[in-house]
Amino acid sequence: MHQASSKYPLLDQIEFPSDLKKLKVEQLEELCSEIREFLINETCANPGHLGSSLGAVEIAVALHYVYNAPYDKIVWDVGHQAYAHKILTGRKHVFHTNRRYGGISGFPKMSESIYDAFGVGHASTSISAALGMAVASKLKGETDRKIVAIIGDASLTGGLAFEGLNNAGHLKADMLVILNDNNMAIDPPVGALSEYLTHITASQTYNRIKTDVWNALSKLNKLGPMAQKAVQKIEGAIKTMVMRQSNFFESLNFRYFGIIDGHNVTHLVNILKDLRQIPGPKLLHVVTVKGKGYKYAEENKVQFHSPGPFNKETGEIIVDASKRTKYQDVFGYTLLELAQQNERIVGITPAMPTGCSMNIVMQELPHRCFDVGIAEEHAVTFSAGLATEGYIPFCNIYSSFMQRAYDQVIHDVAIQNLPVVFCLDRAGLVGEDGATHHGVFDLAYLRAVPNIIIAAPMNEIELRNLMYTAQLKNWGPFAIRYPRGYGVLNEWKLPFEEVPIGKGQQVSEGEEIAILSIGHPGNFVQEALQLLPAHISRPAHYNMRFVKPLDEELLHDVFTRFKKIITVEDGVINGGFGSAIAEFMTAHGYDAALVRLGVPDRFIEQGSLKELHHECGFDAEGIVQAILKMAGTKLFKDISLPNYG
Amino acid sequence: MHQASSKYPLLDQIEFPSDLKKLKVEQLEELCSEIREFLINETCANPGHLGSSLGAVEIAVALHYVYNAPYDKIVWDVGHQAYAHKILTGRKHVFHTNRRYGGISGFPKMSESIYDAFGVGHASTSISAALGMAVASKLKGETDRKIVAIIGDASLTGGLAFEGLNNAGHLKADMLVILNDNNMAIDPPVGALSEYLTHITASQTYNRIKTDVWNALSKLNKLGPMAQKAVQKIEGAIKTMVMRQSNFFESLNFRYFGIIDGHNVTHLVNILKDLRQIPGPKLLHVVTVKGKGYKYAEENKVQFHSPGPFNKETGEIIVDASKRTKYQDVFGYTLLELAQQNERIVGITPAMPTGCSMNIVMQELPHRCFDVGIAEEHAVTFSAGLATEGYIPFCNIYSSFMQRAYDQVIHDVAIQNLPVVFCLDRAGLVGEDGATHHGVFDLAYLRAVPNIIIAAPMNEIELRNLMYTAQLKNWGPFAIRYPRGYGVLNEWKLPFEEVPIGKGQQVSEGEEIAILSIGHPGNFVQEALQLLPAHISRPAHYNMRFVKPLDEELLHDVFTRFKKIITVEDGVINGGFGSAIAEFMTAHGYDAALVRLGVPDRFIEQGSLKELHHECGFDAEGIVQAILKMAGTKLFKDISLPNYG
Repeated sequence: MHQASSKYPLLDQIEFPSDLKKLKVEQLEELCSEIREFLINETCANPGHLGSSLGAVEIAVALHYVYNAPYDKIVWDVGHQAYAHKILTGRKHVFHTNRRYGGISGFPKMSESIYDAFGVGHASTSISAALGMAVASKLKGETDRKIVAIIGDASLTGGLAFEGLNNAGHLKADMLVILNDNNMAIDPPVGALSEYLTHITASQTYNRIKTDVWNALSKLNKLGPMAQKAVQKIEGAIKTMVMRQSNFFESLNFRYFGIIDGHNVTHLVNILKDLRQIPGPKLLHVVTVKGKGYKYAEENKVQFHSPGPFNKETGEIIVDASKRTKYQDVFGYTLLELAQQNERIVGITPAMPTGCSMNIVMQELPHRCFDVGIAEEHAVTFSAGLATEGYIPFCNIYSSFMQRAYDQVIHDVAIQNLPVVFCLDRAGLVGEDGATHHGVFDLAYLRAVPNIIIAAPMNEIELRNLMYTAQLKNWGPFAIRYPRGYGVLNEWKLPFEEVPIGKGQQVSEGEEIAILSIGHPGNFVQEALQLLPAHISRPAHYNMRFVKPLDEELLHDVFTRFKKIITVEDGVINGGFGSAIAEFMTAHGYDAALVRLGVPDRFIEQGSLKELHHECGFDAEGIVQAILKMAGTKLFKDISLPNYG
Repeated sequence: MHQASSKYPLLDQIEFPSDLKKLKVEQLEELCSEIREFLINETCANPGHLGSSLGAVEIAVALHYVYNAPYDKIVWDVGHQAYAHKILTGRKHVFHTNRRYGGISGFPKMSESIYDAFGVGHASTSISAALGMAVASKLKGETDRKIVAIIGDASLTGGLAFEGLNNAGHLKADMLVILNDNNMAIDPPVGALSEYLTHITASQTYNRIKTDVWNALSKLNKLGPMAQKAVQKIEGAIKTMVMRQSNFFESLNFRYFGIIDGHNVTHLVNILKDLRQIPGPKLLHVVTVKGKGYKYAEENKVQFHSPGPFNKETGEIIVDASKRTKYQDVFGYTLLELAQQNERIVGITPAMPTGCSMNIVMQELPHRCFDVGIAEEHAVTFSAGLATEGYIPFCNIYSSFMQRAYDQVIHDVAIQNLPVVFCLDRAGLVGEDGATHHGVFDLAYLRAVPNIIIAAPMNEIELRNLMYTAQLKNWGPFAIRYPRGYGVLNEWKLPFEEVPIGKGQQVSEGEEIAILSIGHPGNFVQEALQLLPAHISRPAHYNMRFVKPLDEELLHDVFTRFKKIITVEDGVINGGFGSAIAEFMTAHGYDAALVRLGVPDRFIEQGSLKELHHECGFDAEGIVQAILKMAGTKLFKDISLPNYG
């Protein structure tokens, strides 16, 4: 009775791929339905990347049915499509902790499971990593080991994926790349390759034409010796062209198979069984539907990429009731306003028009915005090219993805002192996406680069005014980094005011201790000052606004007046903002006690922003603790001191 | 009489492209010969990138003959093939200062000439930059402006180039990409795309087959109505396949033209005139010979990429008589030795087997080394894949090129704590290649990353022992950075000794001042101590060896004993090694005077290593000055203090 009433009669029998292999192939379709049901039930309450994972259920089931993971290696690109994989590999019972503090990661992660062959999060890494595994297997003589990379059509736009394909084709590596083509990134994909895929997918031209030609030629062949000779010539020629060069992937030495319906699990199983036997580099082109099997997700692919909590029955996404505005929307509305006033402004985003809210500008000024696809390196160098011609590109890249374009920032923008405005969204800790996505290195890696201005706003108005300031003249490279999520003000659409470059400001007066903050965590400082017991002296609080150039005038004043300094930032303390203050202090021979709060020297896993700020010890409570400790009071021992790492 | 006896009768008439345009097209071949002669005469005495530039003489002449630079934009990829371009655009008379301190740059550089549309040095940037210019022209309505990018076949391997092509094809940008296919990088190129280019080049298959098929079909067409119908079907099908999809570039929406002899300047001029009229994205495939026109350079392409001084008549390259060994060779020989002992070791290089001396290992253990082409991102992620399977990849990347793979170091290696050994050659200032190539950011950008060990050897033995240590166990990521050029020891092939991780050592005793150095500049410190006037107290000198983890035990001892500290490094002082010392000092409340010597916060141009170290103030003389100043002596004023920036 109990079994019969289960919502998941087949899934209940499966903990690991070995259990899956006991099912008959005819049962897999039903299993896929159950997994979908499970995913929808789980993610409507505990949000995650639903759309991509719904689209890859059959792929995950077929892969684990045919291949022998963990001996065989299954490498998911990006990894937000891998929920079914997680459920089939021992994590069904902990899936409700997905993306939560102390729970399982939203992405494959080697330290979490032996079935996660490679940790992912950023796009386009899978082919290179899988090639490393394929080469390793060959070196070890483990020729029975199979390696599979699963990559989406949007991730294929990234230069790293091309580098991987190019090298794999050269090495004739024994590996299978599954191109999971759902014709979507978070937003619809862009790029010539994407059009190419759409073309061969939509019309099925490529394969149909091959068949047509062979049929036509066989008819001609019957027309006598002269015709036969011509036909032979044509056949040979076409074979050379079509088989060797007719396909983007085949020109890179990959054997191309497809196009296959990615939701026909039986068919997928059969094809994978065949491909398992074929050596060398192979690409299987699979077409899937993002959000497959959940009506609302299929209809609204962008919203259901990572919808947050939603009503399963109605598909209604439960919107945060906050009256505040997200920083990203402040960016979007402000950029629109500025672009309407200054025709030199253009917007560039690598595949994040919705994520960074540049879509607000795109709707009004489509010809002034460029979604270049998942291609951060190109986004920056393309911006540099535009800047040489007198434009002021606002290039919006998530902070952690900007790591991809570090060389382009140095080599193509900073050396030439070009006026590119880098708007780094998702700077600081990002919460549930975890270690791969935290934008915590930017202040440290950008600070080393000459010519660049680095600013971080404490609130929406400051973001707005920094953006306004950045386009007032050719400052050279100008980075403005701001966090994921909501701002702090009810009203922020005020008239623009220029922010003096390299000037901080005092937020509140105080004595004994000076707190220097950069960016949004300045609000945590203000909160901390509210929490501080009444008999403790108020520290002074300075919002530095710029990491580069530092406000040396202000700092001289601070270090002259105060002998106890606390710095607060939402980035790494190794080399970051606090480090710049330590450099200033030692360079000018000031003698003060300096405590640097920020992200410690270890990778921080996922959790809510609140939890992670607390873990790192720079939330309001952590700041209070630091103040109490520095003030020499015993009070700080009453509350356990966060671990600063 | 004077004119007649000139070696360069045509070149003498040309200062700028406007002069070139006055020549008849029949004179261009002779001009090309003169330019070649000029280049060989100049570079045999004042070394430079000869081979690539000899190969691109006709391309440069034809481009400036047909296009109207600087209104039209000519963007050279990498730029070491652009000497003819420099000579034709006002820099003939200063070409003898090429790559010299205070002279002209070895690469196109916007601040040097309005004809240099984009500054380059690193590979694969040209298409993205040119696309930015093409889009800018369109936005401005300057539809008569033409944009050309010239990219080598090796540079096309870089993911950024693919990202650029993909986006340009999508935007249908009006631009021409000239693929300068000399089938060489510095070493022979690798990659499936390279094989593909060789295939279509060598056999001329692609175009010949198209012709053959049309001919065969036209014959068949005469065989009556049934045949005609079949032929129509085949023609249509082939057009779809061949025209739209038959070519790698056409699959990315580029119209493909080629293959053209890149040394037939008349033909080039005619084709460029035609292509100028064709809108949209176009690629012209040009085949050239690296070193063209100079026998020795054609025969010995690798050596003559950047040969140093050579005897023009005999082609003999004048070898530096130093008895010392280059650090890169210490790397090569040591890696071979280690790989022979430890079968888990593999070598990875992005297109620098000769440059980093991994070719020493390749000759003996070809199956254990992987030249992945110009693809730094892939080199790192591929290494990560190998590491997941138990290998210890020694991934050798020039420090400044490692900026390309920063995200892969963080995301694919460090987060997963994989044992990849990063050997960063050309770290510190590199000399004549200038601002784009200095490897001065590595300590700062790597120091921010958790889990990574960062070491820098002071001499050949230390490099050897650090490499030995790195493969003794799974340390996680392990970076060893060392400079371009020669070491300091006569004998270095001594038995291996393990270096304790995170442990520095005292090099010489002293008092009052402690000098903390990292890496090779420790030798400058020792030199400085020799130069120091006898009556000045000897400072103590510590070779820290590791930037991460810092030797905290040693530092506590130093800061307890000394109140005056000087740090010396060949990297940026913003966020680098000295910054780590400042962090340590402030975190532990030490009160000392700290002077950080290193690369100041501006881009350093080209020059000899000696000149650049002096400019930055951390050569022996600069260190002496810092000691004298810190010691409070008046002596330091006698010699002008270098500018620390």
